[in-house]
Order: sequence, then C-alpha cells, then structure tokens
Amino acid sequence: MGDYAFDEDSRVEPGVDGEYTAKLTGRWNGTRGAVNGGYLLATCTRALALSMPFPDPIVISGFFLRPGMAGAAAIRTSLIRGGRTTAFGEAVLTQDGKEVIRATAAFARLSQDGQVFLGAAPPDLPPPDECVRLLASEPGMPRIAERVDFRRVELPGWFRGEPTGQPSSEFWMRFADGRDADLLALPLVVDANPPPVLELGVSTTTIQLTVHLRAKPAPGWLACRATTRFVGGGYHEEDFEVWDSAGILVAQSRQLALVLPLLIRVLRAFRACRAFRGGNTGVQAD
Amino acid sequence: MGDYAFDEDSRVEPGVDGEYTAKLTGRWNGTRGAVNGGYLLATCTRALALSMPFPDPIVISGFFLRPGMAGAAAIRTSLIRGGRTTAFGEAVLTQDGKEVIRATAAFARLSQDGQVFLGAAPPDLPPPDECVRLLASEPGMPRIAERVDFRRVELPGWFRGEPTGQPSSEFWMRFADGRDADLLALPLVVDANPPPVLELGVSTTTIQLTVHLRAKPAPGWLACRATTRFVGGGYHEEDFEVWDSAGILVAQSRQLALVLPLLIRVLRAFRACRAFRGGNTGVQAD
Repeated sequence: MGDYAFDEDSRVEPGVDGEYTAKLTGRWNGTRGAVNGGYLLATCTRALALSMPFPDPIVISGFFLRPGMAGAAAIRTSLIRGGRTTAFGEAVLTQDGKEVIRATAAFARLSQDGQVFLGAAPPDLPPPDECVRLLASEPGMPRIAERVDFRRVELPGWFRGEPTGQPSSEFWMRFADGRDADLLALPLVVDANPPPVLELGVSTTTIQLTVHLRAKPAPGWLACRATTRFVGGGYHEEDFEVWDSAGILVAQSRQLALVLPLLIRVLRAFRACRAFRGGNTGVQAD
Repeated sequence: MGDYAFDEDSRVEPGVDGEYTAKLTGRWNGTRGAVNGGYLLATCTRALALSMPFPDPIVISGFFLRPGMAGAAAIRTSLIRGGRTTAFGEAVLTQDGKEVIRATAAFARLSQDGQVFLGAAPPDLPPPDECVRLLASEPGMPRIAERVDFRRVELPGWFRGEPTGQPSSEFWMRFADGRDADLLALPLVVDANPPPVLELGVSTTTIQLTVHLRAKPAPGWLACRATTRFVGGGYHEEDFEVWDSAGILVAQSRQLALVLPLLIRVLRAFRACRAFRGGNTGVQAD
C-alpha cells in the first residue's frame, strides 16, 4: 500500500460494526471541483473488500447522490447476504452526515479460467510510446489528469476545440505513478477518462455506474474503449471496456449520466491555448 | 390496472412507512421453478414508483440474492435522497423474512425531447406476422413463455437442439395478453427472453441487472436485441436493447450472470420433440 497515490488516497480505516473512515483528496478532482465518481466507487469497493467473506469484487453498482468533495468521509458497510459462492454487500459513503454515494456489490472468488467466448476484440492501438499524451498541465484540464496517463493515436477533437461528433474513443491508460491496476482500482479506471460525449460538445455528470470485474489484470498498460451510443431526453449512457496487457477483458462498465452544457470557460481556454501553440497543444511523446 | 397479467401480478399494496406487500405468482417462472428476475425487479420498481417524489424511473439496479418463489412478498422502500431533479430510492424484497432482491433506483421526470445522438439502429426485422413464434406449449418451455409473445425470423438454434455458437439475437416481443409496455414493465421486458448464451449450450442465472429507462414506449410491438460478448471465469454479461414501435430506444440493460450447465432434461425434451414433429416444432404464424 506504500507510496502510490491510489493506495494512499483510497485508504480506509476500520472502525466498529463495518464502519470505515477515509480521507478523500483533491488529487482526483474532475473539471467541476468535485472528486471523480470512480474514485468514490473504488474507495467504497476497498471498504467492502475488507468486510466481505470473499476476496474479489465481481460487480459493483453505485448511485451518485451529491458531489463528493476532498475531505473526511465515513463509509458504512453491511453484509446483505453471504452465500456459498457469492456474498453481497452495501456501502454508504457520507460526508458531513450527508450521503454522497450508495454502492451495492457482489463478491466471489474469481476463477483463473480463461475466456471461453469472445464476441469483440481489444482496441487495436499502436504502442503507447507511439501515441500522443494528454498533458495535465494544459489549461482547463482537471486535477485527475495528473494522476492518470492517457495515450491516444491523436488528440481528441474536443481537446483541439473541434468536437468530432463521434462520442467514442480507444486509448491506453495507466496510473501516472506506475502503479499497476488491480480489481480494486478498476472502478476508478472505468470513470477516469474524459467522457466521449465531449465530442458532441456537451459535458456530463454520472447518476449511476455499474462495473463488472471480469478478471484480475496483468501488469502494464490497459487498452480501453469508451463509447456513448444513445443521447436523448437529457441523458446518455457510456460503455467502457478495459483490456489488460495480456489481451484479456478485465472490466466492463456502463453508466447513466445527465447531459450538461460544456463549460464555456473550458472551451475558451482550449481555443486560446490552441491558437497560441499552433496545434501541438498537449502532445508529448514518451 | 384491470385484467392484464402484468398489472395483476406485480400489484403492490401499501402498508406503513414505505412498506408494501405483493403476491408473486408462478406465471412468470423460469425453467428452474423460480420467478423471473425481471418480474421481481419490476415489482420493486412499482413499489418505488408509489414512494418517490418523481414519476419516472430512469435507472434501476437489482442484486439477486436468492431465488424468488410464487407466494407472499414484502417490499421495504426508502427514499435515499430527494433532490431537485432526481430522487434516489431503495427497495428490499423479502419472502419469509429472507431478502430476495435489493434494488436501488433513480427517479426523475423524463423529458419528451427526442434522441439527439444515435450510434446504433433498431433491429431490422420483418413484420411480426411474418416471423415465427416460440410456443409456450412445447416441452421444456418455462411458464413465463405463456405470458410473453416472441417473434423471430427463425427458431433459435438451442430450441432446435443445435446451438449456433452465436449468443446474440434480435426479435419482436410483447405481452401475450396485448398489454402495451410502459416504463414500469420495461424491467421485466429486458429479462423475459430466453438468454442468448443458450446458443453456447449453457444456461445462466442473473446476479445483477441494471436497467436504463430512456423513453416512454409507444404502444405496439417492441423490437429487441440481446447480446452476450464475453463469457469467461464462470460469468457472462448480457446486453439488452428495447426499441418501441416508433423506432425509439426505450430501455437498455446489462446483467452479470453466472454460467450454469444447461439442464440435460430440457435439451432431451427439445430433441425428442424435434424428432417427433419434424422441424416445425414451436412455429406458428400469426
């Protein structure tokens, strides 16, 4: 649990009767100054992992009730049912006595059996060091961008100030400090990316996120695919796949999110930046 | 709420403090004698709809803790948070004092805004009366098949005793008694179909199911798409889309399920039936 940011920042201290305390940090903040939803969900998963009679989360579903902020948090966990092969638990994270996220999860012992049917392939990407990197130092980038290293074939359209109209992307991803992802980190991984609906010129806030944990990730870069297919009535879904360095699907998630107008100041910042730097904005080869 | 089976069988009677009672019937049983999971989730949704300060469920997530059986059930609902535009609630359905399903949901007021981005098309199917129907009277068919009318271009491979190896299908669907689907029925609709993994020669039991309710369905047949893409480590996901007669995506769901060996007696019954009837088994044009 040493020095990595994720381990440090999602640490939970056990109290009595399934209660834990955590100290959320601002290092995983999104663009609106609240902590990232996946970070909240991963912190809940970590508390549940200490309480459940099986070691591996296989599915966790979180409802986002209000924005989480850097600062103290309490997590109340309960065992809903401990079955023969599967245990179910609930975690309620509160700040200042107000509920921020309610998560329900199933835990089991993930088998090492391989994939027996595969109806989709991992993203087909050039090696990470041949991709471009989104730099956290660019104007308008959220703090979480300092903690996660994203590599793409080319810069996203929204980042260049020219949304492509195609809310889908494939990219490499890993923690910036080199920590390899494990099952406990995956609920954060699936929500750490800039949302693909930025390519439609809108922003978003998550209402609900379900993560399936399908296998323990091998060390190394994660190949990811984020896709939104349906936007309407003020909501959209986002699907996310995480493939490990061995080509195994390790997580699959879906969220329902509320469409928000994109912050004008962010777009302006991007445009100003692009005009100033002449198109190389944010790119840095390895 | 007159005479339709769904309304009758998912009826909940209010008690005090957000408690409801229901009388689950065996008319929605699956092949293993337990009630269908979507039926349980729809019953919980209906109880929540009576308790929440907004009219429309937009997302509901249910964890299946143990099989539900025909008979009396109690549903304890609670308001987790009533916000300005979204309310969150929880429903816990118990039978004989034991928890069967725990569901969490968000309610809002669905706008009538149309789809603003569409990254997939509805299933391209011939009209229902040019499709074949899966008959509930065939040996091995579960009781729920009496309540739901499925129409396909051709009979599924598993039904003919010859699984195709392709766990994906598109089909028409409606309640057999002509009741049109509404938001409250959609959590049942997304789980009523024979699971596509039958085409891999295995069966399945749901651990967790998340349903996004995206629009109020227009009356008429529903065009559906059920797909499993990843089977491994003893689990699989199933994605489900429901499109209404106006071509609008009205629900999208995903479940995580445990792979089970297909009941030998069911396969034998299909094979015997097929040998006896010479390939027309289960087919009936409108």
